[in-house]
Amino acid sequence: MKPAFPDLSQATVAIVGLGLMGGSLAAALKQQHACRRVVGIARRQATLDIALAHGWIDVDTTSLAEGLASADVAVLATPPRVVLQQIRTVGPLLPAGSLLLDLASTKVDIVSAMENLPMNVHPIGGHPMCGKEQAGVEAADPYLYRNRPFVLTPLARTPAGAVDLARAMVTAVGARPLLLDAETHDRRVAWASHLPHIVAVTLMRATMAAADDDEDIWALTAGGFRDTTRLAASSEEMMTDIFVTNRTEILASAHQFHARLTELCDLLENGDDDTLARYLHEVTTRRREIR
Amino acid sequence: MKPAFPDLSQATVAIVGLGLMGGSLAAALKQQHACRRVVGIARRQATLDIALAHGWIDVDTTSLAEGLASADVAVLATPPRVVLQQIRTVGPLLPAGSLLLDLASTKVDIVSAMENLPMNVHPIGGHPMCGKEQAGVEAADPYLYRNRPFVLTPLARTPAGAVDLARAMVTAVGARPLLLDAETHDRRVAWASHLPHIVAVTLMRATMAAADDDEDIWALTAGGFRDTTRLAASSEEMMTDIFVTNRTEILASAHQFHARLTELCDLLENGDDDTLARYLHEVTTRRREIR
Repeated sequence: MKPAFPDLSQATVAIVGLGLMGGSLAAALKQQHACRRVVGIARRQATLDIALAHGWIDVDTTSLAEGLASADVAVLATPPRVVLQQIRTVGPLLPAGSLLLDLASTKVDIVSAMENLPMNVHPIGGHPMCGKEQAGVEAADPYLYRNRPFVLTPLARTPAGAVDLARAMVTAVGARPLLLDAETHDRRVAWASHLPHIVAVTLMRATMAAADDDEDIWALTAGGFRDTTRLAASSEEMMTDIFVTNRTEILASAHQFHARLTELCDLLENGDDDTLARYLHEVTTRRREIR
Repeated sequence: MKPAFPDLSQATVAIVGLGLMGGSLAAALKQQHACRRVVGIARRQATLDIALAHGWIDVDTTSLAEGLASADVAVLATPPRVVLQQIRTVGPLLPAGSLLLDLASTKVDIVSAMENLPMNVHPIGGHPMCGKEQAGVEAADPYLYRNRPFVLTPLARTPAGAVDLARAMVTAVGARPLLLDAETHDRRVAWASHLPHIVAVTLMRATMAAADDDEDIWALTAGGFRDTTRLAASSEEMMTDIFVTNRTEILASAHQFHARLTELCDLLENGDDDTLARYLHEVTTRRREIR
């Protein structure tokens, strides 16, 4: 018999972690009247109180067991390394037939851990491609997911009905579902997101060292420096989690960046100016196509 | 006898090149009624017509000789390598006792060329620390200089009265004058501005190569990628000019960036996660202090 999944409108969605991502998901689901009930699960009652006050959750609890007991859909909206731990512990707490989705920004490790869940629980990896510099329920926003890609990574074991339910929820909050396998996802986000973090951190760290000898360097930094290093102001917990769960792909992309830096420096040191100008022309032309 | 310089309010300011920087300088001087007259000198009459229509210049000419003939202050607002050529040719065209200022973003090469000007002309290097992605007179803006640092680099031969006049003009357009020697300037801007350009170009170039094998990488790029690569959309002429006129300092800073990238990759590959977290904490803390 094929497993039966409820219509999203009839589903109880339990969200574990009400920070920026989890809080925004709750807010969007309630704003769109997309499901029957949102259960908020957080460690701190203060977080739950804020979500309750906004009307973003119907039920609040600090107990994982209690919160998951009635879930048709359970969403792990905690930091990546916490998600990994929770996948190993929530199996027995989830009702038979429920869908388990995570929101972590790397997928190979997560999906691999999901393989070990009880077979009566239906896992799917998720990664909403959105965010902002602020964190926490205070920064949550029902429009956060609007028009953003939301990667879904089904496992071989994931039934089609579970994928459809996840896709319905993603669509309901205004995001654009994008089905990808975990390896492809992690390789692409290494380039699109993680390497830019590495580069911003490195530029900031190198400039800090140079400024140890000449602190007036800071007085000449302007918008260009600020843009290029902006990602170095991201949460260090989030970056550590991302870096250690996508180590291999990040190191591979950093290696290629390294080779390109050597190439450009060689061109600047030994090349003629026209070759340099042509090299820059190719890059600036492509960059201007990105809005 | 000490050379006598007019008060700025009595001065004729001739601006060579009415692009973003020159056009904005003309616009700001006129808006503030800061000088007696602004003479605009450009190659294309269409550029002069736009500046005239805005009331940013009083006199227009496509002739360098004609435009400079009445100048108390001459400003070279052309691209850095054009400035270098013009410094070698404008000497005989400038009235005795006039001040010559440039706006190029590197200073060692410029100031060195200025040493060879006739002794009855008084040179000073300049670098307004502002800009935007758009170029040309269409992007000119009387507020461009407002509250931005404006580096002034007097030569040993530059009389104090000439420095005072340059400083008065910088202050009149709302900028903050900052006196620096050329070597210090070029080393600091290599860090504050030029290395970020190199890094943005390298990140963009490396991602273009990766996307040759998997073009869907672009679909996952978001605000973080756009911020970190924004400088790679700058004018390639401007970047080529900057890179080749500040080669040594840029290569030195790129070398240190290179070493820091190796350090971070080693930490990611071989270090424990707590050490990585502490490294990131130090960088994110410092970055958040920058507005």
